[in-house]
Amino acid sequence: MTPKAFQDYYPDILSNCYGCGRLNEYGHQIKSYWDGEESVCHFQPEPIHISIPGYVYGGLLAALIDCHGTGTAAAAGYRAESRKKDTEPPLRYLTASLHVDYLKPTPLGIALEVRGKVKGIEDRRVVIEEWISASGVITVRGEIVAIQMPNRFIQDVFHVQE
Amino acid sequence: MTPKAFQDYYPDILSNCYGCGRLNEYGHQIKSYWDGEESVCHFQPEPIHISIPGYVYGGLLAALIDCHGTGTAAAAGYRAESRKKDTEPPLRYLTASLHVDYLKPTPLGIALEVRGKVKGIEDRRVVIEEWISASGVITVRGEIVAIQMPNRFIQDVFHVQE
Repeated sequence: MTPKAFQDYYPDILSNCYGCGRLNEYGHQIKSYWDGEESVCHFQPEPIHISIPGYVYGGLLAALIDCHGTGTAAAAGYRAESRKKDTEPPLRYLTASLHVDYLKPTPLGIALEVRGKVKGIEDRRVVIEEWISASGVITVRGEIVAIQMPNRFIQDVFHVQE
Repeated sequence: MTPKAFQDYYPDILSNCYGCGRLNEYGHQIKSYWDGEESVCHFQPEPIHISIPGYVYGGLLAALIDCHGTGTAAAAGYRAESRKKDTEPPLRYLTASLHVDYLKPTPLGIALEVRGKVKGIEDRRVVIEEWISASGVITVRGEIVAIQMPNRFIQDVFHVQE
Protein backbone atom coordinates (compact mmCIF):
# COMPACT_ATOMS: atom_id res chain seq x y z
CA MET A 1 0.00 0.00 0.00
CA THR A 2 1.36 3.41 -0.95
CA PRO A 3 1.69 5.61 2.14
CA LYS A 4 -0.47 8.73 2.16
CA ALA A 5 1.34 11.99 1.51
CA PHE A 6 0.86 15.15 3.59
CA GLN A 7 -1.31 16.55 0.78
CA ASP A 8 -3.58 13.48 0.75
CA TYR A 9 -4.92 14.57 4.15
CA TYR A 10 -6.00 18.05 3.00
CA PRO A 11 -9.81 18.38 3.02
CA ASP A 12 -11.29 18.26 -0.48
CA ILE A 13 -12.23 21.95 -0.35
CA LEU A 14 -8.55 22.81 0.20
CA SER A 15 -7.19 20.37 -2.39
CA ASN A 16 -7.43 22.42 -5.57
CA CYS A 17 -4.09 24.21 -5.40
CA TYR A 18 -2.21 24.16 -8.72
CA GLY A 19 0.97 23.30 -6.86
CA CYS A 20 -0.18 20.66 -4.40
CA GLY A 21 -3.88 19.94 -4.69
CA ARG A 22 -4.66 16.30 -5.48
CA LEU A 23 -7.92 17.43 -7.14
CA ASN A 24 -6.31 19.89 -9.59
CA GLU A 25 -5.95 17.71 -12.65
CA TYR A 26 -3.86 20.33 -14.47
CA GLY A 27 -1.55 21.07 -11.54
CA HIS A 28 1.66 19.61 -10.16
CA GLN A 29 0.02 17.44 -7.46
CA ILE A 30 3.24 17.23 -5.44
CA LYS A 31 3.49 14.60 -2.71
CA SER A 32 5.49 15.17 0.46
CA TYR A 33 6.47 12.72 3.19
CA TRP A 34 8.53 12.59 6.36
CA ASP A 35 11.98 11.07 6.08
CA GLY A 36 13.16 11.19 9.68
CA GLU A 37 13.42 14.83 10.72
CA GLU A 38 13.31 16.00 7.12
CA SER A 39 10.42 16.08 4.67
CA VAL A 40 10.95 14.96 1.11
CA CYS A 41 9.15 15.32 -2.23
CA HIS A 42 10.18 14.00 -5.62
CA PHE A 43 9.04 15.82 -8.71
CA GLN A 44 9.72 15.33 -12.40
CA PRO A 45 9.42 18.59 -14.37
CA GLU A 46 8.04 18.33 -17.88
CA PRO A 47 9.85 19.55 -21.03
CA ILE A 48 7.58 22.63 -21.14
CA HIS A 49 8.96 23.74 -17.74
CA ILE A 50 12.05 25.06 -19.44
CA SER A 51 13.82 28.36 -18.72
CA ILE A 52 16.85 28.41 -21.00
CA PRO A 53 17.56 25.27 -23.01
CA GLY A 54 18.43 22.39 -20.68
CA TYR A 55 17.25 23.97 -17.44
CA VAL A 56 14.11 24.30 -15.28
CA TYR A 57 12.38 27.69 -15.02
CA GLY A 58 12.62 29.45 -11.70
CA GLY A 59 8.89 29.86 -11.15
CA LEU A 60 8.38 26.10 -10.93
CA LEU A 61 11.25 25.78 -8.44
CA ALA A 62 9.69 28.56 -6.35
CA ALA A 63 6.33 26.76 -6.50
CA LEU A 64 7.96 23.54 -5.26
CA ILE A 65 9.60 25.38 -2.34
CA ASP A 66 6.26 27.05 -1.57
CA CYS A 67 3.95 24.04 -1.67
CA HIS A 68 6.37 21.51 -0.17
CA GLY A 69 6.94 24.08 2.56
CA THR A 70 3.28 24.59 3.45
CA GLY A 71 2.78 20.81 3.38
CA THR A 72 5.71 20.35 5.75
CA ALA A 73 4.34 23.13 7.98
CA ALA A 74 1.00 21.32 8.21
CA ALA A 75 2.66 18.00 9.04
CA ALA A 76 4.82 19.74 11.64
CA GLY A 77 1.72 21.37 13.13
CA TYR A 78 0.00 18.00 13.62
CA ARG A 79 3.20 16.54 15.06
CA ALA A 80 3.60 19.43 17.49
CA GLU A 81 0.07 18.81 18.76
CA SER A 82 0.60 15.02 18.80
CA ARG A 83 -2.38 14.70 16.48
CA LYS A 84 -2.96 12.39 13.55
CA LYS A 85 -3.38 14.14 10.21
CA ASP A 86 -6.93 12.90 9.72
CA THR A 87 -8.26 14.49 12.92
CA GLU A 88 -10.45 17.59 13.04
CA PRO A 89 -10.13 20.52 12.69
CA PRO A 90 -7.82 20.40 9.65
CA LEU A 91 -4.54 22.30 9.94
CA ARG A 92 -3.64 24.24 6.81
CA TYR A 93 -1.05 26.93 6.27
CA LEU A 94 -0.70 29.99 4.07
CA THR A 95 2.67 31.29 2.92
CA ALA A 96 3.51 34.67 4.44
CA SER A 97 6.89 34.89 2.76
CA LEU A 98 9.02 32.88 0.39
CA HIS A 99 12.73 33.19 -0.27
CA VAL A 100 14.58 31.29 -2.98
CA ASP A 101 18.31 31.33 -3.75
CA TYR A 102 19.13 29.89 -7.17
CA LEU A 103 22.64 28.57 -6.54
CA LYS A 104 23.10 27.18 -10.04
CA PRO A 105 20.87 26.27 -12.99
CA THR A 106 18.70 23.20 -12.30
CA PRO A 107 18.91 20.62 -15.10
CA LEU A 108 15.69 19.71 -16.90
CA GLY A 109 14.85 16.09 -17.68
CA ILE A 110 15.47 14.36 -14.37
CA ALA A 111 13.46 13.95 -11.18
CA LEU A 112 14.22 16.60 -8.58
CA GLU A 113 14.34 16.04 -4.84
CA VAL A 114 12.89 18.74 -2.62
CA ARG A 115 13.75 18.51 1.08
CA GLY A 116 12.52 20.52 4.03
CA LYS A 117 13.30 20.88 7.70
CA VAL A 118 11.45 22.71 10.43
CA LYS A 119 13.59 25.67 11.46
CA GLY A 120 11.13 27.10 13.94
CA ILE A 121 7.58 26.58 15.15
CA GLU A 122 5.71 28.80 17.57
CA ASP A 123 1.98 29.36 17.92
CA ARG A 124 0.59 29.59 14.38
CA ARG A 125 3.90 30.39 12.65
CA VAL A 126 6.22 27.78 11.15
CA VAL A 127 9.52 28.44 9.38
CA ILE A 128 10.71 25.75 6.97
CA GLU A 129 14.12 25.68 5.35
CA GLU A 130 14.34 23.76 2.09
CA TRP A 131 16.65 22.72 -0.68
CA ILE A 132 16.28 21.16 -4.11
CA SER A 133 18.80 18.75 -5.57
CA ALA A 134 19.28 17.23 -9.00
CA SER A 135 21.36 14.05 -9.18
CA GLY A 136 22.59 14.73 -5.67
CA VAL A 137 23.73 18.30 -6.37
CA ILE A 138 21.94 21.08 -4.50
CA THR A 139 20.88 23.74 -7.00
CA VAL A 140 18.34 25.74 -4.97
CA ARG A 141 17.97 26.73 -1.32
CA GLY A 142 14.81 28.29 0.03
CA GLU A 143 12.83 29.19 3.09
CA ILE A 144 9.20 29.91 3.78
CA VAL A 145 7.35 31.43 6.68
CA ALA A 146 3.96 29.73 6.90
CA ILE A 147 1.04 30.91 9.00
CA GLN A 148 -1.74 28.62 10.16
CA MET A 149 -4.92 29.47 8.31
CA PRO A 150 -7.45 31.08 10.68
CA ASN A 151 -10.57 28.99 11.29
CA ARG A 152 -12.67 31.95 10.21
CA PHE A 153 -10.85 32.00 6.89
CA ILE A 154 -11.45 28.26 6.37
CA GLN A 155 -15.12 28.80 7.16
CA ASP A 156 -15.26 31.59 4.56
CA VAL A 157 -13.70 29.25 2.00
CA PHE A 158 -16.27 26.58 2.75
CA HIS A 159 -19.02 29.19 2.45
CA VAL A 160 -17.82 30.16 -1.02
CA GLN A 161 -18.48 26.64 -2.16
CA GLU A 162 -21.91 26.14 -0.64
CA MET B 1 0.96 49.02 -33.94
CA THR B 2 1.37 47.25 -30.62
CA PRO B 3 4.64 48.26 -28.93
CA LYS B 4 7.15 45.46 -28.46
CA ALA B 5 7.53 44.15 -24.95
CA PHE B 6 10.87 43.57 -23.22
CA GLN B 7 10.45 39.83 -23.87
CA ASP B 8 9.85 40.34 -27.60
CA TYR B 9 13.52 41.33 -27.91
CA TYR B 10 14.89 38.13 -26.37
CA PRO B 11 16.73 36.04 -29.00
CA ASP B 12 14.72 33.01 -30.13
CA ILE B 13 17.08 30.61 -28.37
CA LEU B 14 16.32 32.35 -25.07
CA SER B 15 12.57 32.65 -25.66
CA ASN B 16 11.34 29.29 -24.40
CA CYS B 17 10.90 30.10 -20.73
CA TYR B 18 7.60 28.86 -19.31
CA GLY B 19 7.16 32.18 -17.55
CA CYS B 20 8.14 34.69 -20.20
CA GLY B 21 9.18 33.01 -23.44
CA ARG B 22 7.10 34.11 -26.42
CA LEU B 23 7.85 30.73 -28.07
CA ASN B 24 6.58 28.56 -25.19
CA GLU B 25 3.03 27.91 -26.33
CA TYR B 26 2.09 26.31 -23.00
CA GLY B 27 3.64 29.00 -20.84
CA HIS B 28 2.53 32.34 -19.45
CA GLN B 29 4.16 34.53 -22.14
CA ILE B 30 4.17 37.60 -19.92
CA LYS B 31 4.77 40.99 -21.53
CA SER B 32 6.54 43.80 -19.72
CA TYR B 33 6.91 47.47 -20.66
CA TRP B 34 8.32 50.69 -19.25
CA ASP B 35 5.83 53.06 -17.69
CA GLY B 36 8.05 56.00 -16.79
CA GLU B 37 10.55 54.84 -14.18
CA GLU B 38 8.50 51.73 -13.43
CA SER B 39 7.98 48.60 -15.49
CA VAL B 40 4.53 47.09 -15.80
CA CYS B 41 3.01 43.77 -16.84
CA HIS B 42 -0.62 42.75 -16.90
CA PHE B 43 -1.50 39.12 -16.50
CA GLN B 44 -4.82 37.28 -16.27
CA PRO B 45 -4.51 34.03 -14.28
CA GLU B 46 -6.66 31.13 -15.42
CA PRO B 47 -9.17 29.28 -13.23
CA ILE B 48 -6.72 26.37 -12.86
CA HIS B 49 -4.23 28.71 -11.16
CA ILE B 50 -6.16 28.40 -7.93
CA SER B 51 -4.75 27.96 -4.42
CA ILE B 52 -7.73 27.96 -2.09
CA PRO B 53 -11.13 28.71 -3.62
CA GLY B 54 -11.23 32.26 -4.95
CA TYR B 55 -7.49 32.97 -4.82
CA VAL B 56 -4.36 32.65 -6.97
CA TYR B 57 -1.70 30.08 -5.99
CA GLY B 58 1.57 31.44 -4.70
CA GLY B 59 3.81 29.70 -7.21
CA LEU B 60 2.31 31.67 -10.09
CA LEU B 61 2.73 34.95 -8.21
CA ALA B 62 6.38 34.03 -7.55
CA ALA B 63 6.83 33.22 -11.25
CA LEU B 64 5.42 36.64 -12.21
CA ILE B 65 7.80 38.40 -9.81
CA ASP B 66 10.68 36.31 -11.18
CA CYS B 67 10.09 36.74 -14.91
CA HIS B 68 8.87 40.34 -14.82
CA GLY B 69 11.96 41.04 -12.72
CA THR B 70 14.47 39.50 -15.12
CA GLY B 71 12.74 41.28 -18.00
CA THR B 72 12.99 44.58 -16.17
CA ALA B 73 16.65 43.86 -15.37
CA ALA B 74 17.37 43.33 -19.07
CA ALA B 75 15.59 46.53 -20.05
CA ALA B 76 17.47 48.41 -17.32
CA GLY B 77 20.75 46.95 -18.56
CA TYR B 78 20.17 48.26 -22.09
CA ARG B 79 19.09 51.62 -20.72
CA ALA B 80 22.20 51.86 -18.52
CA GLU B 81 24.36 51.26 -21.57
CA SER B 82 22.27 53.64 -23.72
CA ARG B 83 21.66 50.76 -26.11
CA LYS B 84 18.56 49.79 -28.04
CA LYS B 85 17.14 46.39 -27.14
CA ASP B 86 17.70 44.97 -30.61
CA THR B 87 21.46 45.55 -30.58
CA GLU B 88 24.08 42.83 -30.15
CA PRO B 89 25.14 41.14 -27.97
CA PRO B 90 21.82 40.35 -26.27
CA LEU B 91 21.57 41.14 -22.57
CA ARG B 92 19.81 38.46 -20.56
CA TYR B 93 19.65 37.92 -16.83
CA LEU B 94 19.41 34.96 -14.49
CA THR B 95 17.74 35.16 -11.10
CA ALA B 96 20.19 34.75 -8.24
CA SER B 97 17.58 35.23 -5.53
CA LEU B 98 13.87 35.82 -5.26
CA HIS B 99 11.92 37.07 -2.28
CA VAL B 100 8.13 37.25 -2.13
CA ASP B 101 5.94 38.58 0.68
CA TYR B 102 2.31 37.52 0.39
CA LEU B 103 0.59 40.42 2.11
CA LYS B 104 -2.91 39.10 1.57
CA PRO B 105 -4.62 36.49 -0.64
CA THR B 106 -4.69 37.54 -4.33
CA PRO B 107 -8.17 37.20 -5.84
CA LEU B 108 -8.57 34.88 -8.82
CA GLY B 109 -10.61 35.92 -11.87
CA ILE B 110 -9.29 39.39 -12.60
CA ALA B 111 -6.23 40.73 -14.41
CA LEU B 112 -3.29 41.39 -12.12
CA GLU B 113 -0.85 44.24 -12.46
CA VAL B 114 2.81 43.53 -11.77
CA ARG B 115 5.07 46.54 -11.33
CA GLY B 116 8.82 46.78 -10.94
CA LYS B 117 11.39 49.43 -10.18
CA VAL B 118 15.17 49.32 -10.39
CA LYS B 119 16.48 49.46 -6.83
CA GLY B 120 20.13 49.09 -7.73
CA ILE B 121 22.30 48.40 -10.75
CA GLU B 122 26.06 47.84 -10.71
CA ASP B 123 28.22 45.89 -13.11
CA ARG B 124 26.32 42.71 -13.95
CA ARG B 125 23.99 42.79 -10.92
CA VAL B 126 20.53 44.37 -10.90
CA VAL B 127 18.11 44.51 -7.98
CA ILE B 128 14.45 44.97 -8.85
CA GLU B 129 11.70 45.65 -6.34
CA GLU B 130 8.22 44.65 -7.41
CA TRP B 131 4.61 44.53 -6.34
CA ILE B 132 1.43 42.91 -7.61
CA SER B 133 -1.96 44.52 -7.31
CA ALA B 134 -5.48 43.32 -7.92
CA SER B 135 -8.14 45.98 -8.51
CA GLY B 136 -5.72 48.58 -7.16
CA VAL B 137 -4.94 46.72 -3.93
CA ILE B 138 -1.36 45.54 -3.44
CA THR B 139 -1.42 41.89 -2.42
CA VAL B 140 2.20 40.87 -3.00
CA ARG B 141 5.58 42.55 -2.67
CA GLY B 142 8.77 41.02 -3.99
CA GLU B 143 12.36 41.56 -4.93
CA ILE B 144 14.81 39.79 -7.16
CA VAL B 145 18.55 39.96 -7.57
CA ALA B 146 19.34 39.34 -11.23
CA ILE B 147 22.77 38.60 -12.65
CA GLN B 148 23.70 39.23 -16.27
CA MET B 149 24.12 35.92 -18.06
CA PRO B 150 27.81 35.36 -18.90
CA ASN B 151 28.56 35.33 -22.62
CA ARG B 152 30.17 31.91 -22.17
CA PHE B 153 26.91 30.60 -20.76
CA ILE B 154 24.91 32.00 -23.68
CA GLN B 155 27.38 30.36 -26.08
CA ASP B 156 26.90 27.04 -24.27
CA VAL B 157 23.14 27.41 -24.63
CA PHE B 158 23.46 28.05 -28.35
CA HIS B 159 25.76 25.07 -28.65
CA VAL B 160 23.14 22.81 -27.04
CA GLN B 161 20.79 23.66 -29.87
CA GLU B 162 23.17 23.20 -32.78
